[in-house]
Amino acid sequence: MNFRSYVVEFIGTFFLVFTIGCVSLLGGDGVINAVAIGLTLMIMVYAGGFISGGHYNPAVSFAAAIRKALPWVEFIPYVISQLLGAAFAVLLINHFSGHVGNFEGCAFNFWPMAVGEFLFTFALCYVVLTTATNRETRGNSYYGLAIGSTLIAGIFAVGGVLCYGAFNPAVAMSLGMMNIACWQSVFVTIIANFIAGAAAALVYKYVAPDRIEIDL
Amino acid sequence: MNFRSYVVEFIGTFFLVFTIGCVSLLGGDGVINAVAIGLTLMIMVYAGGFISGGHYNPAVSFAAAIRKALPWVEFIPYVISQLLGAAFAVLLINHFSGHVGNFEGCAFNFWPMAVGEFLFTFALCYVVLTTATNRETRGNSYYGLAIGSTLIAGIFAVGGVLCYGAFNPAVAMSLGMMNIACWQSVFVTIIANFIAGAAAALVYKYVAPDRIEIDL
Amino acid sequence: MNFRSYVVEFIGTFFLVFTIGCVSLLGGDGVINAVAIGLTLMIMVYAGGFISGGHYNPAVSFAAAIRKALPWVEFIPYVISQLLGAAFAVLLINHFSGHVGNFEGCAFNFWPMAVGEFLFTFALCYVVLTTATNRETRGNSYYGLAIGSTLIAGIFAVGGVLCYGAFNPAVAMSLGMMNIACWQSVFVTIIANFIAGAAAALVYKYVAPDRIEIDL
Amino acid sequence: MNFRSYVVEFIGTFFLVFTIGCVSLLGGDGVINAVAIGLTLMIMVYAGGFISGGHYNPAVSFAAAIRKALPWVEFIPYVISQLLGAAFAVLLINHFSGHVGNFEGCAFNFWPMAVGEFLFTFALCYVVLTTATNRETRGNSYYGLAIGSTLIAGIFAVGGVLCYGAFNPAVAMSLGMMNIACWQSVFVTIIANFIAGAAAALVYKYVAPDRIEIDL
Repeated sequence: MNFRSYVVEFIGTFFLVFTIGCVSLLGGDGVINAVAIGLTLMIMVYAGGFISGGHYNPAVSFAAAIRKALPWVEFIPYVISQLLGAAFAVLLINHFSGHVGNFEGCAFNFWPMAVGEFLFTFALCYVVLTTATNRETRGNSYYGLAIGSTLIAGIFAVGGVLCYGAFNPAVAMSLGMMNIACWQSVFVTIIANFIAGAAAALVYKYVAPDRIEIDL
Repeated sequence: MNFRSYVVEFIGTFFLVFTIGCVSLLGGDGVINAVAIGLTLMIMVYAGGFISGGHYNPAVSFAAAIRKALPWVEFIPYVISQLLGAAFAVLLINHFSGHVGNFEGCAFNFWPMAVGEFLFTFALCYVVLTTATNRETRGNSYYGLAIGSTLIAGIFAVGGVLCYGAFNPAVAMSLGMMNIACWQSVFVTIIANFIAGAAAALVYKYVAPDRIEIDL
Repeated sequence: MNFRSYVVEFIGTFFLVFTIGCVSLLGGDGVINAVAIGLTLMIMVYAGGFISGGHYNPAVSFAAAIRKALPWVEFIPYVISQLLGAAFAVLLINHFSGHVGNFEGCAFNFWPMAVGEFLFTFALCYVVLTTATNRETRGNSYYGLAIGSTLIAGIFAVGGVLCYGAFNPAVAMSLGMMNIACWQSVFVTIIANFIAGAAAALVYKYVAPDRIEIDL
Repeated sequence: MNFRSYVVEFIGTFFLVFTIGCVSLLGGDGVINAVAIGLTLMIMVYAGGFISGGHYNPAVSFAAAIRKALPWVEFIPYVISQLLGAAFAVLLINHFSGHVGNFEGCAFNFWPMAVGEFLFTFALCYVVLTTATNRETRGNSYYGLAIGSTLIAGIFAVGGVLCYGAFNPAVAMSLGMMNIACWQSVFVTIIANFIAGAAAALVYKYVAPDRIEIDL
């Protein structure tokens, strides 16, 4: 049990979801949204990376566990910490927004949503594994920039076009709780996120086979 | 007495507040504001970090003092240097703007303002302590990027929505002096900033207990 | 034969072209386009740079081969991997966009297009060679930021003004396949890209003669 | 005589001024301008910093010479290389734009222009000296990001508000040659730039006295 890591994961996921809620429900426009959200992920990765790995995302924790950068016994506590941080952020956002989201009805296209969420969650986990868990890139200063920018690029590319641009089961759950997304689409998103995390871990193991080491 | 650090703190806070004044009173729009302000903080952190620590913010100096990254005897001189830099910037802005701000009346919501200022000042101090005062992240090249980006993310997320997005008592004072904010709201902001700095220092001490060392 | 590198080049070029397709055909505006595309290149350079060099661009591979950072025997397999990644992205984009591009007729100005593509492909290859293949800059953390930002700056400067802002034969081919550009202009772009890559390699050899070493 | 450095300074200043010309005369809007220009400076600093120091700016070369990071005998050749690069870019821009700028009449406010150019040229030279010529920051990966971002922040803060946002005598000359600025204002800008470079060098010598060393 590593409570320090859980606190760090709670804090980081809280700020990630709180920022998403602020720009989605309390103001802001499209350009600001993606940058604000991606920078929040970046700063939390830099702040907590050396303590917990800086996941803030159950799909990333899943990929890290498959690739042996996170012990499996830590997987569930990590996810719980992330979900609690996300839920606390949603409570605060729902309090300030005075209502619960802007969602009405539930219409979404399955394949665009599944493919969009799969592709950039794959990119996110692939970037995390290559830049933050590999011996050859050890000690680099760019991992947070790369990880946060993947989120910005993904939201710009497919967010609001093919899918919600969550790339993160904890964020998907929060979109449901803030009534921004319907629960059927949240479910599709979460499944696509975890499959993408597993795929990224397998691809990583193929392209960087002799270089597996936990080093963050 | 370390006059070199005071000069560096004066210069950095001057440019931070001068940029805020330029984009707030002399032109610019919302997107530019946050980026210009955050980049100014970033460049001054990179320029002066190795001399004074690159605080430019009494709440950050407070957090650094609690965490023993700044000797307490330096706290008051640091704050005075920061306030002088801020005041000099305000004088210049008020001269060029030809008037003193655009504030009329004084209406603000206490809790949104207090919570918004608390949260991102907490994030700012948490990022400063983890990325710029910890042995394990020593020698990294991202601390300025992370610190400046926290300000950008915070202004995008809660600035103008829940609060002014100052996250800095010297900036809050400047907003009062430029008549952008009323003094009651400035007072609330300053208190929230210092409480957040203390909270960040305490959380840092918990999550990174064996890693306390002055290394910038 | 280094299949791991080919997989990495395939993945990176896929995401680069997929992002271009998303912002060009599925939504987005001008400011978002350049940033999304440049950040995607940046993250893929950081993710795969230590495995394949992170080219994702036949003109960059050409420059790297001339400068001896890539064995000539690997040049064709690299280009094939890049073109396959690009083609797969185009298939997906054309499926989701429901049509093949927005191009009608074929009118372009030869010299602006040739000069615009030449200049920033030169800049891109010059930046890659100096920041990612030189002994003196070995181990730096900025190469991906510099390379991705060159693409952003180039698209902002000349993209849509003088030329398409491809700076990459695989991207140029994709623009033709997505019917965004006519094949005559694609041909001009590709020739300009390769000439620029060769010019950058020659300039590099002059300005950094004693510093030639493969180090990524 | 170090011709390699002169070629690097020529290339970098060429791209800086060419990008300025593209976004000023051939298209683009305010937000794009500052980012495109600042990123171009950043990439050229990263590409050529280890060869020539990556100045691309006579005021920076002046500051570097005062601070002994550039031999005085190299000052004039550096400035000539920079002016030639700028002039070549202007020729190309004037050719493509089909006219020479959009300037009419010559009205400018002396003090805002002088103060705006002084302040951010000071910031630029102060950032260059602290991040790229100091022993304690040796080997960092952020110097190009800090230098380029200073230009972005300066253009956002005072460019078009108090002054042209040149912060660079070679750029100021180019604005005159492209007929964007009248020559009286160019003259004021150039004087303010050199005074700022000298001031930054003196302040640097005070705040970092034991740390003087050429290390880029």
